[in-house]
Amino acid sequence: MIIARVIGNVWATRKEESLRGLKFLVVQPVVMKYTETGEVYLEGRGDTMVVGDRIGAGETEIVMIASGSSARQSLPDTHIPVDAMVVGIIDKETFESGCGV
Amino acid sequence: MIIARVIGNVWATRKEESLRGLKFLVVQPVVMKYTETGEVYLEGRGDTMVVGDRIGAGETEIVMIASGSSARQSLPDTHIPVDAMVVGIIDKETFESGCGV
Amino acid sequence: MIIARVIGNVWATRKEESLRGLKFLVVQPVVMKYTETGEVYLEGRGDTMVVGDRIGAGETEIVMIASGSSARQSLPDTHIPVDAMVVGIIDKETFESGCGV
Amino acid sequence: MIIARVIGNVWATRKEESLRGLKFLVVQPVVMKYTETGEVYLEGRGDTMVVGDRIGAGETEIVMIASGSSARQSLPDTHIPVDAMVVGIIDKETFESGCGV
Amino acid sequence: MIIARVIGNVWATRKEESLRGLKFLVVQPVVMKYTETGEVYLEGRGDTMVVGDRIGAGETEIVMIASGSSARQSLPDTHIPVDAMVVGIIDKETFESGCGV
Repeated sequence: MIIARVIGNVWATRKEESLRGLKFLVVQPVVMKYTETGEVYLEGRGDTMVVGDRIGAGETEIVMIASGSSARQSLPDTHIPVDAMVVGIIDKETFESGCGV
Repeated sequence: MIIARVIGNVWATRKEESLRGLKFLVVQPVVMKYTETGEVYLEGRGDTMVVGDRIGAGETEIVMIASGSSARQSLPDTHIPVDAMVVGIIDKETFESGCGV
Repeated sequence: MIIARVIGNVWATRKEESLRGLKFLVVQPVVMKYTETGEVYLEGRGDTMVVGDRIGAGETEIVMIASGSSARQSLPDTHIPVDAMVVGIIDKETFESGCGV
Repeated sequence: MIIARVIGNVWATRKEESLRGLKFLVVQPVVMKYTETGEVYLEGRGDTMVVGDRIGAGETEIVMIASGSSARQSLPDTHIPVDAMVVGIIDKETFESGCGV
Repeated sequence: MIIARVIGNVWATRKEESLRGLKFLVVQPVVMKYTETGEVYLEGRGDTMVVGDRIGAGETEIVMIASGSSARQSLPDTHIPVDAMVVGIIDKETFESGCGV
């Protein structure tokens, strides 16, 4: 999975019927970096992308994104044409302590 | 999903029978960028690609594209050999206000 | 989908039984570019790849390629371990007029 | 598959219900390199990523990761929205001798 | 499909039960290049990767690799968490004559 920061929204009035009601976010992928003392920080990497969201991620939150057919497994109907979905919101504590190093 | 600008068409007379009737577009992927004041603009990124379209996107419109097996979920028959489909047309308002920042 | 120019063949005597009878081509991916006056031309991009072909594409022809599980949908048996297939041959007219711009 | 070094953990309290109980690791992809004398060493490559783990990989261990729909095949329920899973822990011996060259 | 040269082996004692008995190779992807006189040669490209092998490819042999869910189609049980498999061994003749140009 990749992690990314929520930075905006996208609206599409004309779309596949099965996409109605699904919220689309613009996200900026980020990578986790570790300082020599074990602290974690985030760095933007690559281009913005559009992802579906059913969890209710807010702007500036850091989300975990599943891509491809795996993204669809988070939907009640797995035949919806979506290839990237928010599947979790990363806890802030992940980045505040030097946890995990 | 990625977003892209429609820039042309592709014709293939000889093709898989199951592709008959499906329209193919040439699109230029774009990324959303935000100015310091929160306005949204688009920037071309990467190479042109070919995508199927059943929604009726016109040239210069900005579309949302699903890739991989997810693209096929937008078709009545999911056994059609297509790996990228237009699934929505982005509303112009998305880029005109500084929405989403 | 990507488009590519057929540049050669690959032979594999030892292979998965289910691949017997399938022809493999070497192709050079290309991208479509547009001149200011709207004419279309092709430019090679990225590395050569190997794709299956059941349509009968000849050398120098420009083909449309489906990748991933979508490639397998073009086969009578979708359990064949192939991840890229020719699904169409692009009409020459696509590149000769300034169509689509 | 890619191989990667385990470097940390990620926590997400708000997430898809089906992800509860699954551990998420931060890993740094690595590539295997061979010296002229046939010894193997590892070199970090590309950005950190987040993967699920059911095997119990510890920090600094080198793991093998399956991506896409293949990742889900390692789960009891293949409808979980995860696109990268640890599927094995590479034996240290792989890197200590000049094996495999 | 990509083609690659077999350069080594990987061992993992702790792994998903379903992977037991499957051999894992380290391969260096290569691309086919053509000289002006039509002869074919290979050039290494990109990073080493790990692939499953049931065909019995030996070191230095050039193999064809299927990725993603297509890789699993070469296995008796398609629910094995593997995302890249050797599906053929390229005949040496492919590279010795200027075939295919």
